[in-house]
Parts: sequence; C-alpha cells; structure tokens
Amino acid sequence: MDVSTELSAAGSATSEPLARAADLDAADPLASFRDRFVVAEPDLVYLDGNSLGRLPRATAERLTRVVGEEWGGELIRGWEHWIDEPRRVGDLIAPLIGAGPGEVVVSDSTTVNFYKLAAAALDARQGRRTIVTDRDNFPTDRYVLEGLARRNGLEIAWIDPDPVDGPTVDDVTAALAAHPGDVALLTLTHVNYRSAAIADMAAITAAAHDAGALVLWDLCHSAGAIEVDLEAAGVDVAVGCTYKYLNGGPGAPAFLYVRRSLQAELRNPIQGWFGQRDLFAMAQGYDPAPGIGQWLTGTTGVVAIAAVEEGVRLTAEAGIAAIRAKGVALTEFAIELVDGRLAALGCSVGSPRDADRRGDHVAIRHPDAKRLTGALIERGVLPDFREPDSIRFGLSPLTTSFTDVARGVAALESLLA
Amino acid sequence: MDVSTELSAAGSATSEPLARAADLDAADPLASFRDRFVVAEPDLVYLDGNSLGRLPRATAERLTRVVGEEWGGELIRGWEHWIDEPRRVGDLIAPLIGAGPGEVVVSDSTTVNFYKLAAAALDARQGRRTIVTDRDNFPTDRYVLEGLARRNGLEIAWIDPDPVDGPTVDDVTAALAAHPGDVALLTLTHVNYRSAAIADMAAITAAAHDAGALVLWDLCHSAGAIEVDLEAAGVDVAVGCTYKYLNGGPGAPAFLYVRRSLQAELRNPIQGWFGQRDLFAMAQGYDPAPGIGQWLTGTTGVVAIAAVEEGVRLTAEAGIAAIRAKGVALTEFAIELVDGRLAALGCSVGSPRDADRRGDHVAIRHPDAKRLTGALIERGVLPDFREPDSIRFGLSPLTTSFTDVARGVAALESLLA
Repeated sequence: MDVSTELSAAGSATSEPLARAADLDAADPLASFRDRFVVAEPDLVYLDGNSLGRLPRATAERLTRVVGEEWGGELIRGWEHWIDEPRRVGDLIAPLIGAGPGEVVVSDSTTVNFYKLAAAALDARQGRRTIVTDRDNFPTDRYVLEGLARRNGLEIAWIDPDPVDGPTVDDVTAALAAHPGDVALLTLTHVNYRSAAIADMAAITAAAHDAGALVLWDLCHSAGAIEVDLEAAGVDVAVGCTYKYLNGGPGAPAFLYVRRSLQAELRNPIQGWFGQRDLFAMAQGYDPAPGIGQWLTGTTGVVAIAAVEEGVRLTAEAGIAAIRAKGVALTEFAIELVDGRLAALGCSVGSPRDADRRGDHVAIRHPDAKRLTGALIERGVLPDFREPDSIRFGLSPLTTSFTDVARGVAALESLLA
Repeated sequence: MDVSTELSAAGSATSEPLARAADLDAADPLASFRDRFVVAEPDLVYLDGNSLGRLPRATAERLTRVVGEEWGGELIRGWEHWIDEPRRVGDLIAPLIGAGPGEVVVSDSTTVNFYKLAAAALDARQGRRTIVTDRDNFPTDRYVLEGLARRNGLEIAWIDPDPVDGPTVDDVTAALAAHPGDVALLTLTHVNYRSAAIADMAAITAAAHDAGALVLWDLCHSAGAIEVDLEAAGVDVAVGCTYKYLNGGPGAPAFLYVRRSLQAELRNPIQGWFGQRDLFAMAQGYDPAPGIGQWLTGTTGVVAIAAVEEGVRLTAEAGIAAIRAKGVALTEFAIELVDGRLAALGCSVGSPRDADRRGDHVAIRHPDAKRLTGALIERGVLPDFREPDSIRFGLSPLTTSFTDVARGVAALESLLA
C-alpha cells in the first residue's frame, strides 16, 4: 500500500494537514525550485535529501558536456581550465558559509579534509596533548580523531552532550577547564546529524580560543541549509560536505576552509603535487602553493567537481536566507504535526524546539524507530533511521514540499494507528 | 598548418613510414578497440593517453545511467549497491596487476593512497629512520615522502638514477647498504613517467626485504599498459592511477593494493567511516573493517568510480598480454622512426632500447623540447613535454595507431627540417 492509498483510506483524519500543506506550498517562494531537479517518482516522499540531495537538471546536462565534450573532446587540453575548478568552486561556496575569496577549496572527501586540517592543527599546537570533541559527533570525525590521537600519543576529552540539544558552551568550557593549557584542538559538528541541534559556533569558538586551542567545525549538515558566518565567529578551519544540501551527487568531493590569517601557519600533512606551487614544473622539493592552494592533494576529480559547481550555483541562486527561512518553516510544520498527530501514538520530537537552535531536519523518536523506518520505506516514504531511536526527516528547502512533510507524517501515523 | 597538410607537403619523404604504419595497423589485433572510444577529432594525433586516457563510449553511456537513473532515480537507495563498488572494481583491477581478490580497492587519489600506505609502512617499521626512493620518482610521491619524513623525523636516502634507465637493483642495494638495518620503506615507481624505464620489481623488492624494509610500488604508468605480477614479486603495498591507461577519466579515483598477509598488520592512518567494520551502525570507537576494506576513508565517489569500472572492463576484455604486445610494437616503431628520421635533426631516444625494460611511452630528447612540444600541439599533435628536454610520446595500445606514431614523428621532422 503506498502513501496515496493510505491517505485516501485515512480520509478526513489526514485532510487537515494536507490542506494546510497545500496552502503553505502555494505561498512558498522557493516552490518552483523543485522543478529544477529530476523528480523521477513524483509520488515518492523523499525525506533524505540531507543524506543525498536530489539531482539538479542542470547537473545532468553539465555532466554530459563535461564527459563528452571536455574529457572526450578536449582530452588533456581540458586541464587548462580544469586546474582552476577547486578554487573556483570553493569561491562559490565561500559566501554560503561566511568565508572570503581564497579561503575555501574543493578537494577529496570530508574525511580526508578533516584529517588534513585536524592533523595540521595538532602540529600547530605541539606540546598540548588533548583534543576536545563530543560523543554524538559524526562517526567519521570521531574515528579520524581516534587515529590521530593514537598516532600522536594524545588524549580525547569526550563531551557527553544532551542527545537533543547537543554540546553547549558550558559543556565546552567545562572540558577546556578540565585540561588547562593542554587543549590543542576543539572540533564539533555545527548541526548535529541526528538531532539537528545547532551548536553556538561563535561562543564555543571564542571559549576555545581563550584556552589557546584551535577550532575545527564540521559543516556537513549546515552548508546550503542554514546561514553560517565563519569569519564573524573567528573560526580557524572547517570542512563540509557537498552531497547533502548542496546536491553535488553521491560521494561528491568535499570542501575545506582555512582562515586567511592562518594559511601561512598551518601545513597540509598530505603534500601532494596539486598543492605544489608550480605543479607542472615537477621540480625537486615540495614548495607549497600560497594560500588555500596547498590544501589540494592529488589530481582533481574533474567530473565530480563539475556536479558540485552546479549544485552550489542553484543554492546561491535561491539565496541562503530564503533557504533557511523555508527550512525553519518546514521543520516547524513537521514538529507541529508530530506533536498533534504522533505524540499520542508514542512519538516525541528529538530535535530542539527553538528554531534558532535547529537545522533543517527533524528527529522523531520512537522505541521502534528502526522497524518503522523500514515500513515507511516500503510505503514510498524515505526518511533515515539513526541509532538508537530516531526517524530522521531531512527537509531540503529546495526540493522538499510541505505536502511531503504532511504525507510523511500521515504515513507514520497510519503505521502507528 | 595541420598535420595532414604538412604530410602532403613533405611528400615522399614521409610516405614510407606512413605506408609501413598502415600495414602495421592492418595487422593489429587490437585495432578495432579504437572504435570503442570517443574520437572527436579523427585527425588529431593524440600521444598523451598516458596522461589522460580517452573516453570509452561505454563510459559515456554508463555515466548517463549512473547520474540519471541511479542518483536521480534511486536516490539514497543507490547505496545498497554503490557500497560494494570500491571492492568490486578493485577485484576487476587485481588480475591486471597480479593481485588476488580482496587485495585491491578503489578510493581517493593516488596521492592520498600513497600517503596512507607510506605512513602505515613507516608505522610498521618504527625505530628505522630511513626512506629510500629516487630523485626521478614522480613528484607527488617525492612530496608526500618529504612531508612524512619531516613529520616523523626521518631521512630520505635519494637514489640518483640514470635518467634513461632509472633506478637499478645495484642502485637500491647500495642505498640499503649505506643505511644498514635502518631502512623502513623503499618506494619506487615501476615505470618511470619520463623515460618509461621499467624497474626490476622482483629483484628490488627482494633486496629491500633482505634489508628488512617494506616496499611500496607506484604503478601509475604500469596499470593497463604492461604486465605486472605483484604477488610473484612479493610486493607489500602498491598504488596506481586509473586515468591513464585504464581510461577512467580526468582525476578518476585511484587504487591501492595491500598484500593479504599484511592486511592485519598495517593500519590506515586516515580512519574514516567507510573503513569502519559496520559503517552504518555509527558506533563509538573505530573498529577497522577486515581485509582491504579498512583502506577506504570517506564516502565513495559514485559517479567517478563507475567510469573507472568501464575503463577497466575494456582493458580486461582486450587482455593485458595483447595490450603489452602492442605497446612493445608501438614503442619499437617509434624508436625506429626517431633513429631513422630525427636523429640527424638533433633528437635522441630518451627511453631504454630494450623493450623488456621499457613501458608504453617513448621520450624523444632534444635541447629545444619545450618549444617543439608547443609547436606540435599547434599542429594537432599532442605529446607532453617533460623537464628538462623530453618530448614524451604516450602510446596507449587500445587507442593509439601506428599511423599516429608515424604522423607524430613526421610532424616533428617537419618542424626540425
């Protein structure tokens, strides 16, 4: 039984949210952006755009050109312009995260970028022996830190944050105070991947700086979803993903940010030829490129980075303020429906209720969340399950409608009733 | 003036090589493979397939499906099969390099893979303080080693090899003997990127093992071009590129090899979530996947790896023995023409004359090589210039014809005459 059938069967019980959703969709200034994406199954309720964003139509066309005309036609001559792509697409991402030109570059995966920046930060604070992060941080960040800590003989001071609200300034301050003068690096994810809690970037960064630590933020669930101002917050370094809200494609290359004033100090541990000052001279002796260029490593993935560019262009065209406004509206609507339709059926909201503290997804907690997620997927509603008990509704402002939210909640209501 | 016009102008002076090339092409058992690739400019003489291989027609079609149907249609559900791609494509590459199933994986760039394996090897030989490599090694390998040496307080013992013949067993033995019991890692490129010299993998690996060192081979100019037998040579770890002879596309993800018996001992320094035993459990504590899986780092680039698969499939279909046989014939023909037509005009062969010691490209040395390369490109012949004095003719057996070789040499002859 798919969602449409269920909604008809549920009748008036679900009609009010659907009618309200239709009104909200009609008033949505970003509604037309959905037509800029490939929507292969119009009835599918896709609530996982924060795990893999949809395919922009422009990307499909661009990739056909990049593959056929550039690789197939230009062959090696394509490098005359491909060589600029990592910096050029980085500069397109920069205004979305409050960075300046020459502070962002697209390269490698989030994991590899996180490793490069964390390792560089630890090298820049040699003698300090503690890394501060939180146990609810995204797994790849934690795993990379564990490897660096073991390799360098350091300790990780783990914050155990509230599962809904995420790490607070007080959590961070306490962790810093417990290791006076010894914290080399503080690193957190800006928007928690499970609860969507937004960490207080400015206050936490300031606290870490007061303690002499460098600060690395993971923007995977922030970039293209909420407004970020790295410069205003004084952030040192950051990484982020392009395959979620930036719609860059499965496993698309990631970005990294290094504050301009730190670019001469920090050093990429992976000294690759694309980070060399004069790449094609193939000279003796590594001589890092000035600025953000030294953070490149190996040969740029040309096809993949072209897809990132198209996704970022769509985001820039819509405007991050409008995207964020719709993200708030979508999540507010979802929470209202969870409270109104699902709370009596054993669900609770696992995301902050204050919109300013919440990213663009909503966690719906239920003891049977894993099985329910599987049942939703069978019925054409695609959220994500996150341990231990969250059904995660990812609400991508450029592609998710209010009707998607209402239908997703109605399907869950039907399963629980 | 393009090549065709020049050939007409040159008249009978070039007709003999062209006639011989036509005969060789007619007898070439791999000639039909050229039609499996996009050839946008039939008159272009492309001699840079060892820098960027041509676009297979199957790849263009496959990428349209991967982007439109898989990303666009399957959305997040695509991960049910995408997750297997790095190992699956690795297993397709394995027989081309003498590796077994579960010993090769596709991930990251050559540079990042080289870093992971070199760092792991150094960790496995702690207490030893020397890395042996050669000054003619490919730049990214040298740069990565310099970074690791600095970070770990190690020394690099540089071999200065003959510029044509590359590092020999004697060179390696001397370097090992100069640092008795202290060499942690010996690493060389199997086929030199400039001269095409093939290093004696088995003898050099054995010598390094006798000295207690681990051995890392760079197969960038070997994979898909010449026969490689990592297992017979007892190689520990290796990396290689897929965008040259394997035709995987500009900046395509690279592969890495870890000998099965070393897989439990060596540890990836970049502990990412794709190397975790149970990726989606998102559990506390990094627990490396068994076998080759731990060498993955971040999220797999799905579009890019699909292109690699198609390129590798074409290579496997042609068969590496047939590819190598044609590679020898192409380079023999090129050398014969350089000797016969260009030697009197100031050129010399900068590649080994023994076919068993030469990969699938030929270096043509001339004091004015840089300017000549530019002039050739203007005339529709695309070789590569390599410092200090080499015009490099890359001869890709699946796509380069003997006529391409004759036309390339004729164009250079015309420029020099």
